[in-house]
Amino acid sequence: MQASATEADFAAWMGATQGRVEAALARCLPGAQHSPARLHAAMRYAVLEGGKRVRPLLTFAAGELVGAEARRLESAAAAVELIHAYSLVHDDMPCMDDDVLRRGKPTVHVEYDQATALLVGDALQTLAFQLLAEQPLADDPRLQLEMVRTLALAAGSRGMAGGQAIDLESTGKTLSQTELEFMHLRKTGALISAAVKLGALCAGACPAALEQYAHRVGLAFQVVDDVLDAEASTATLGKTAGKDSRQGKPTYVSAMGIAHARHLADELRRGAHAALAALDERALRLRQLADFIVLRKF
Amino acid sequence: MQASATEADFAAWMGATQGRVEAALARCLPGAQHSPARLHAAMRYAVLEGGKRVRPLLTFAAGELVGAEARRLESAAAAVELIHAYSLVHDDMPCMDDDVLRRGKPTVHVEYDQATALLVGDALQTLAFQLLAEQPLADDPRLQLEMVRTLALAAGSRGMAGGQAIDLESTGKTLSQTELEFMHLRKTGALISAAVKLGALCAGACPAALEQYAHRVGLAFQVVDDVLDAEASTATLGKTAGKDSRQGKPTYVSAMGIAHARHLADELRRGAHAALAALDERALRLRQLADFIVLRKF
Repeated sequence: MQASATEADFAAWMGATQGRVEAALARCLPGAQHSPARLHAAMRYAVLEGGKRVRPLLTFAAGELVGAEARRLESAAAAVELIHAYSLVHDDMPCMDDDVLRRGKPTVHVEYDQATALLVGDALQTLAFQLLAEQPLADDPRLQLEMVRTLALAAGSRGMAGGQAIDLESTGKTLSQTELEFMHLRKTGALISAAVKLGALCAGACPAALEQYAHRVGLAFQVVDDVLDAEASTATLGKTAGKDSRQGKPTYVSAMGIAHARHLADELRRGAHAALAALDERALRLRQLADFIVLRKF
Repeated sequence: MQASATEADFAAWMGATQGRVEAALARCLPGAQHSPARLHAAMRYAVLEGGKRVRPLLTFAAGELVGAEARRLESAAAAVELIHAYSLVHDDMPCMDDDVLRRGKPTVHVEYDQATALLVGDALQTLAFQLLAEQPLADDPRLQLEMVRTLALAAGSRGMAGGQAIDLESTGKTLSQTELEFMHLRKTGALISAAVKLGALCAGACPAALEQYAHRVGLAFQVVDDVLDAEASTATLGKTAGKDSRQGKPTYVSAMGIAHARHLADELRRGAHAALAALDERALRLRQLADFIVLRKF
């Protein structure tokens, strides 16, 4: 009974937060009545009604821990999700991963065309930075500039875009666990860490415990992604399953096998909990999210 | 004698400012010794040693008018140029304008590959916003956030990226002068206006006269671009000439003929001067730049 009441409470929080984020995204994306109509329609197609919104959930959980205002968290969370959405649109393009299915729907270049997909990704990235500069999001505007800097560092050539470049270069190669970690801390980890940090910055500085938590959760997320790509079905994932091994991509599963990868993910989950040990029950959502990320089935 | 002394003085200012901007760009771009090496090398290839740096020159001219510090102007000018450079890399890709020559060199996707070109453009855009948030660039951090917002609005789906989308949709169509203006105010004008505004924001608010000047210079720049594409050679331009008419793109030349397009450009040049009428000799560089932009041969 206890466990299921807690689970129901978490599910309710998650649903409410996802709803808030969806509304914030729908508000910030220009409507298709504004020219250029096709580009705006494609931007909405790429972003709305899709995904678990893991990064925005982390922004809210971190922000709620430090008492940040919900309106600020909406903008910060939406900015992080826009960067994530842009990266998916570009990664799916034929010159990159060449995928036709994302979040259970045809990818943007399939539903529209490649030129539109290119511009959609470009414009979503721009919109993320616009969001971070449009409304007051921190008590001190210098903290808000720190949010811009944090998101840029996470997304750029030494963060997410750099991780994707390493990923492309690594196809067909065998990477050591250290090299895999180097790649994934950039490709996935950097933006997940930024999601946590931006939530905290909405109310002040980011506590060191949160940075440590974010680092571990970010890695765990990618390890689990690799396991799911190897084990789950396309229908469950809403994106093409089994692609990593077909494309010869080095993953945690190819590097250490499924059993060890699962074990590593659980170790990282426990490490994330340990990072929060000194914090009180206000860190509940962050603890629950670490479990959710590692124990998810899709 | 008088005219040539003035010309020599302008040329010296332009050369010195271009040198400053080149150094700022070289400093902010990660070196190829940092992983991922290939991506960082390609980013430097896309940005360095190229172009007239018209937008950075406008940032400096506007900033010098209002007494902004050179160090701040360097960052603001480099940020604008990074956005411009990213747009060129993506516009040249096969799914967009499919061009092989830019600034006298093979385009990024030709010299490297399409996936790298995609990531180069993505990471250059991110770096632009990083630059605007890294150092104090205004007396009030809220003005610096206004710089981020200004650049984002100019680059996004209702600015440059939107203009490019309209351009793609318009291929093979005939546009009226009003429709052409709507497209070009976004595709080229928005970023040129932002270049001027960011320069002014480094020292305070942007005077209304400067906004008007920027609007006219931005349009004039595109009209002249259309004329040059029709008249100049590939060798002079450093990019493929005569493409607009081969690709069936609507231009000022196709809409009104070369003679009328030249006349319009000169009208806009005089309008830009008129906008500066109430300003003293500190607006000299802006006046000279309006002439330079309209009278250039490449």
